[in-house]
Amino acid sequence: MFVVMRPHATPAEIGEVIAHARALGYETREVVQGERVAVGLWGGPDGQPSGRLASLPGVVNLVRVSSPHPLASRAIDSGTTRIEVVPGVVIGGSDVVVMAGPCAVENEDQLLAAARGVRAAGATILRGGAFKPRTSPYSFQGLGEAGLAMLEAARRETGLAIVTEAVDVASFDAVEAVADIVQIGARNMQHYPLLRRAGRSSRPILLKRGLSATLKELLLAAEYILAEGNMKVILCERGVRSFENYTRNMLDLAAIPSLHELSHLPVVADPSHGTGRRSLVGPMARAALAAGSDGLLVEVHPEPGMALSDGPQSMDLEAFRRLMEELPTAAESAGRAMAAPTTPVT
Amino acid sequence: MFVVMRPHATPAEIGEVIAHARALGYETREVVQGERVAVGLWGGPDGQPSGRLASLPGVVNLVRVSSPHPLASRAIDSGTTRIEVVPGVVIGGSDVVVMAGPCAVENEDQLLAAARGVRAAGATILRGGAFKPRTSPYSFQGLGEAGLAMLEAARRETGLAIVTEAVDVASFDAVEAVADIVQIGARNMQHYPLLRRAGRSSRPILLKRGLSATLKELLLAAEYILAEGNMKVILCERGVRSFENYTRNMLDLAAIPSLHELSHLPVVADPSHGTGRRSLVGPMARAALAAGSDGLLVEVHPEPGMALSDGPQSMDLEAFRRLMEELPTAAESAGRAMAAPTTPVT
Amino acid sequence: MFVVMRPHATPAEIGEVIAHARALGYETREVVQGERVAVGLWGGPDGQPSGRLASLPGVVNLVRVSSPHPLASRAIDSGTTRIEVVPGVVIGGSDVVVMAGPCAVENEDQLLAAARGVRAAGATILRGGAFKPRTSPYSFQGLGEAGLAMLEAARRETGLAIVTEAVDVASFDAVEAVADIVQIGARNMQHYPLLRRAGRSSRPILLKRGLSATLKELLLAAEYILAEGNMKVILCERGVRSFENYTRNMLDLAAIPSLHELSHLPVVADPSHGTGRRSLVGPMARAALAAGSDGLLVEVHPEPGMALSDGPQSMDLEAFRRLMEELPTAAESAGRAMAAPTTPVT
Amino acid sequence: MFVVMRPHATPAEIGEVIAHARALGYETREVVQGERVAVGLWGGPDGQPSGRLASLPGVVNLVRVSSPHPLASRAIDSGTTRIEVVPGVVIGGSDVVVMAGPCAVENEDQLLAAARGVRAAGATILRGGAFKPRTSPYSFQGLGEAGLAMLEAARRETGLAIVTEAVDVASFDAVEAVADIVQIGARNMQHYPLLRRAGRSSRPILLKRGLSATLKELLLAAEYILAEGNMKVILCERGVRSFENYTRNMLDLAAIPSLHELSHLPVVADPSHGTGRRSLVGPMARAALAAGSDGLLVEVHPEPGMALSDGPQSMDLEAFRRLMEELPTAAESAGRAMAAPTTPVT
Repeated sequence: MFVVMRPHATPAEIGEVIAHARALGYETREVVQGERVAVGLWGGPDGQPSGRLASLPGVVNLVRVSSPHPLASRAIDSGTTRIEVVPGVVIGGSDVVVMAGPCAVENEDQLLAAARGVRAAGATILRGGAFKPRTSPYSFQGLGEAGLAMLEAARRETGLAIVTEAVDVASFDAVEAVADIVQIGARNMQHYPLLRRAGRSSRPILLKRGLSATLKELLLAAEYILAEGNMKVILCERGVRSFENYTRNMLDLAAIPSLHELSHLPVVADPSHGTGRRSLVGPMARAALAAGSDGLLVEVHPEPGMALSDGPQSMDLEAFRRLMEELPTAAESAGRAMAAPTTPVT
Repeated sequence: MFVVMRPHATPAEIGEVIAHARALGYETREVVQGERVAVGLWGGPDGQPSGRLASLPGVVNLVRVSSPHPLASRAIDSGTTRIEVVPGVVIGGSDVVVMAGPCAVENEDQLLAAARGVRAAGATILRGGAFKPRTSPYSFQGLGEAGLAMLEAARRETGLAIVTEAVDVASFDAVEAVADIVQIGARNMQHYPLLRRAGRSSRPILLKRGLSATLKELLLAAEYILAEGNMKVILCERGVRSFENYTRNMLDLAAIPSLHELSHLPVVADPSHGTGRRSLVGPMARAALAAGSDGLLVEVHPEPGMALSDGPQSMDLEAFRRLMEELPTAAESAGRAMAAPTTPVT
Repeated sequence: MFVVMRPHATPAEIGEVIAHARALGYETREVVQGERVAVGLWGGPDGQPSGRLASLPGVVNLVRVSSPHPLASRAIDSGTTRIEVVPGVVIGGSDVVVMAGPCAVENEDQLLAAARGVRAAGATILRGGAFKPRTSPYSFQGLGEAGLAMLEAARRETGLAIVTEAVDVASFDAVEAVADIVQIGARNMQHYPLLRRAGRSSRPILLKRGLSATLKELLLAAEYILAEGNMKVILCERGVRSFENYTRNMLDLAAIPSLHELSHLPVVADPSHGTGRRSLVGPMARAALAAGSDGLLVEVHPEPGMALSDGPQSMDLEAFRRLMEELPTAAESAGRAMAAPTTPVT
Repeated sequence: MFVVMRPHATPAEIGEVIAHARALGYETREVVQGERVAVGLWGGPDGQPSGRLASLPGVVNLVRVSSPHPLASRAIDSGTTRIEVVPGVVIGGSDVVVMAGPCAVENEDQLLAAARGVRAAGATILRGGAFKPRTSPYSFQGLGEAGLAMLEAARRETGLAIVTEAVDVASFDAVEAVADIVQIGARNMQHYPLLRRAGRSSRPILLKRGLSATLKELLLAAEYILAEGNMKVILCERGVRSFENYTRNMLDLAAIPSLHELSHLPVVADPSHGTGRRSLVGPMARAALAAGSDGLLVEVHPEPGMALSDGPQSMDLEAFRRLMEELPTAAESAGRAMAAPTTPVT
């Protein structure tokens, strides 16, 4: 149940609602959406008695949410949550944001070449993994903290915001210190301690759909983060497991409008992991925008043939540049525009 | 193996190639693509000896095709096969074609209302099932031949070409007599007697991907049709079975550029069956075009709430009209335009 | 709704029920299960009024069946339907029946060698395909009617009953004339004209689960057969499509007890197609019996390395003989015994 | 590559192999299997030169393993690895071990009642979760350390060994201090920091297959543990995600003989999670043993209707007792026997 307060409700009004709800036996959480505040109530007595709650000062109404993931549900917000990553870069607004870069940070030259290239082509966020979860223990596992330092240097140099993955609670602090968006990967979508830690972060969280997660499970994973107080969650469709072998995963683009129906959280797509084939990334990037995606995550490598991971699905810089020229029309077909490049650092 | 002939090779030249190949023990098939002819060879001796084939008059070269579906493979044609459904309506050309109409033909009024409405909105082909394969023996199974007559009447009235399904060999003749495109449904994608019958038809065949068919299996099903001599096959992605329950099927849009990589056959998408939810049809229709689809199959019903089948995924005429306004930009993002409406019948 | 009659109800009593039900607007079907008769009612007025039906002579009670597949549902029979294939060979009784033989009938010698071998090892039914549905149009498609004649000869020689596949309505008569059980393959599970034809046959039908069919869809396919009047349907679990590549299909053994919960129809398993690997057939055959399977379908070839189809999943005769020695204990773990070999033909 | 040493090779012989291999540029790991030792080599020069390795004292031969998971592969051991959990309780030996108990430890009475009951019925290991990974943040998440204490008390009282789950690195020490087997759950199968921590544990690890993990991915996850030095890994098939809704998961019993082909590690099955329905647990438990499973994991609750988690798939004590009576015959069908109950604590 949510107690929806009038705009600009006073702290005293909110406090009285919370005190009253707790007296009834509820746990409470304040949910801030711009100027609106709602107080979420959990647990509490059977039959959800609400006593005088509806008539307390500042209360507009009570919303009973039957959703298993109330904080993530569409019921509490009719718009898409706007997440300001850094000043001027918003995910979930009218403009579509492109995050691009290599799968893994390999060395300073590779990362800077990628960063400059994707920036020149119009991307506003740089992706790159410092900590890499790999299926085989014998594969390259990422540069770790050294990779984070390279990402930081690339941001200084290019002004691009940084999205990079945290693979466990132990390394979360280090990642959070550098990342503008902290990514939680598909394999960790149901690693709850990591979700809870993300929920206590001040950074936006990019939450990737698990390899065979239903939309409901993805939203319940988001709910773990939201329930800890971090309302800045970006959902990411990155393909699910299927019987089809031509592609690495099956990119479920219907997830984009479906998640927009079910939730107020912004949704982005990863056509690189979603297909596993460079030649399919362009068509699926366009398709994702036409389906209403709030952004894209694209793997770009200065020399895909030399990539330490995910080479076959990485575009080179020239292919990425051409792709970026095709995207405005695709975005327009869904009533959107591409985000303007950020001002260069001077 | 294919023996590729020079443009405008003479019948005598082609005949000599065929005779020579048969003498070597091959089965042969002439494949005509516009002005080019190739002679396909199957079976034959181990090690594929070709004797003097390469040096016969009119022979340009020999192409060894390792594909399990040589006639459907990209190897034999670098372009997309253009299929002229009726004069002026081409699938696989530069323009995108929309086929729209009700799931099932229910009565004359319903069909005519749908036909007029989708025509006014810009569709060029009318879809509607007279024979309906239904999961339950107790569900409405279609009007059969009476439904075909209604489709014929709708064509006379509106000038729209007709696509309708043949569910078995027994009713194929009747369907073929009326249809401009004969559809083979997902459940019948591997009913080989029906595929072979379709291969002996002069009509274009719309072949839907099976409920859990791989792309390779879809192309092998197409090969059954092609191998009987009918080169006019249109592939249709309509969603595959998955673990996700929010949508009826999982629309695998990556199949569109994938099939274009693997095959010269045109590819269309069915976002209605592909999602099972009316609210998702628009975004997925746009996405299909952005992914490079050569056309769309959309369920439209004058009164979706009254539909005898597939109501939840059918749009009403007004929603379809709005969708058609969004499509040109989506098509443009893939370098395509929408097909112009056919000239009204006078 | 079913009107359950007393044992040995008279034709007059049954006739009165039918007449009364039709007067109420229902369609009716007589369902005979041994000495019990029930009258199934469909359609009819909203709210299912039953008038004086319950009080007519010979009526025991009315059973309202909410199942979408009432004739196949557990509600109409608490036991397993016993299907007598030939005198002395019963599927669905206390004993487990093994059907074994080659995937395809290839020639007389191969078939006879297989038939004698599986008979000696204890199988009671010979399997072998004369009509073969194959994914590729260029693969061996079976010997057709010549293969049927070889099956007939093998039965004369060995006394084994025959199960063989019908792939379409056109060849059904020929198959039915020879087969003791007519198989409908996985790819045709939703080819409804074939199901309806099977429903008008006097032979038992072995209905294989489709490649990605749910249990409900399998039972609805069975319902098509039952609704035409043929109550002798044997369900077959043969593996479904999955993301796992080590095995050809994923054998869903839980389908066996699940189908026994949902339906009164007997259930058999095909561990050969279900795994696609010879080495796994034995363990999965044992497992199927332990799970309560009423029978097995096993591919056995005198020389698997020479098989024209499905060689990798075919056992040789010696391996099959050893398997048959392991099965009685597996059957016993589910409270069952192996069917005794049929008396040799003299 | 593995350098296989003669039985009872001396430390000096082994040391010389290691020194020589490192001089060639390899990383090395000693693998002890009973009295046999092999030295695994990784990395190293291209072309895998082995210099004088084969001729060093004590070396029997060099085995080149092309497997992506060499330590888990069948190539290094033709038998099944026997894992002695506590004195007298071996998984992977000739006898089949049953682990049973509640999904979650709820309180002392519930746990003790379950423990006494499953012990009386013949189980040798008690399962019960103190830390519970739950899909929803609002579900009961387990008693944590208090639950561990209850498990410890139940072991003192009944003599049963304990298997319980570790959900993250942070709580691993606490779990390891109490557990005789540490379980890693399906959702964490690819949480690599946890796998590495498990690899540094002295406890046997029960590694559950991920919700849509291939067998290869399961073995690569095991390899993470093995590569850290813990060779005591038990694989667990617990059902995978599928399109079928009647069961909670699809129990892939073919995984049991498949994993035995691919790996020397023991394999157990969890028919409770594998089906999600109490009524199916018995048949699938029997089937798992018939397929060659080295053990079972069964959810048993004194009052399933009151369970805080997984009630619908939990058996009561009486049903479990009856199941245990059916299992010896199922085990016998695979040439196995049931493990004898451990001696009661006196």
